[in-house]
Amino acid sequence: MNMTTRETQTDNNIFPKGEKAPVDYFTGTVWVRMLVPNDDTYNCQVGNVVFEPGARNNWHTHPGGQILIITEGIGYYQEKGKPIQVIRKGDTVKILPDVVHWHGASPDSEFTHIAINPNTQKGIVVWLERVTDEEYHNVD
Amino acid sequence: MNMTTRETQTDNNIFPKGEKAPVDYFTGTVWVRMLVPNDDTYNCQVGNVVFEPGARNNWHTHPGGQILIITEGIGYYQEKGKPIQVIRKGDTVKILPDVVHWHGASPDSEFTHIAINPNTQKGIVVWLERVTDEEYHNVD
Repeated sequence: MNMTTRETQTDNNIFPKGEKAPVDYFTGTVWVRMLVPNDDTYNCQVGNVVFEPGARNNWHTHPGGQILIITEGIGYYQEKGKPIQVIRKGDTVKILPDVVHWHGASPDSEFTHIAINPNTQKGIVVWLERVTDEEYHNVD
Repeated sequence: MNMTTRETQTDNNIFPKGEKAPVDYFTGTVWVRMLVPNDDTYNCQVGNVVFEPGARNNWHTHPGGQILIITEGIGYYQEKGKPIQVIRKGDTVKILPDVVHWHGASPDSEFTHIAINPNTQKGIVVWLERVTDEEYHNVD
């Protein structure tokens, strides 16, 4: 067994917020706590991501696909050329390999998901351009 | 996108409890809600599992390994030949391929984890014998 135990925390979240996500690939304040780093045994990277209201990642793809498990709040998910979808606590999102997409919080809610990147032997993530304010606010 | 939306529920859990787990492989009452069924795109099966106090699965192995994300309660984890480990909300457990193990609730706490089975092209689970009451109560 290889076990990670959380640090003490005072709020009701499952995990501590972790580290600030890199500004090159995120807009607004986003916190990432790595739960399972990538390796060639599990081929599966798992992280907990907290987006403050209005925060989101850049457009990007995953060569091995991605699974999002929404654990708190209300957020947005969009695939290139399709409308923004509102996603909520209890939702699961499956993103096919190489589909261009982004995800993040809605404007008025903090938003938390567990991100599972399987098949990492094919690669983990390919970052693309920033999601503009115009794209972010283009909600039906 | 392939999205699963939870049904309405009245408690504070992230997911509905789902279906009762098969009695052949579990002792006590256990609920399984499949979040991502196995397929050959993601090669990654994800399920939410709720164990009532005292409930546990049989000894078993995963040919592709397993990752457990503990989201609620206090539970037990044991690998064959090693002591029982107490695991709690916020812990992550990584189980190597082919390691004989079991997991479940502690005697006095409901216990919930997300189970991630990666590398399912190698197989998902091999069930073994039941965890006896003597084994379950052999806690230091």
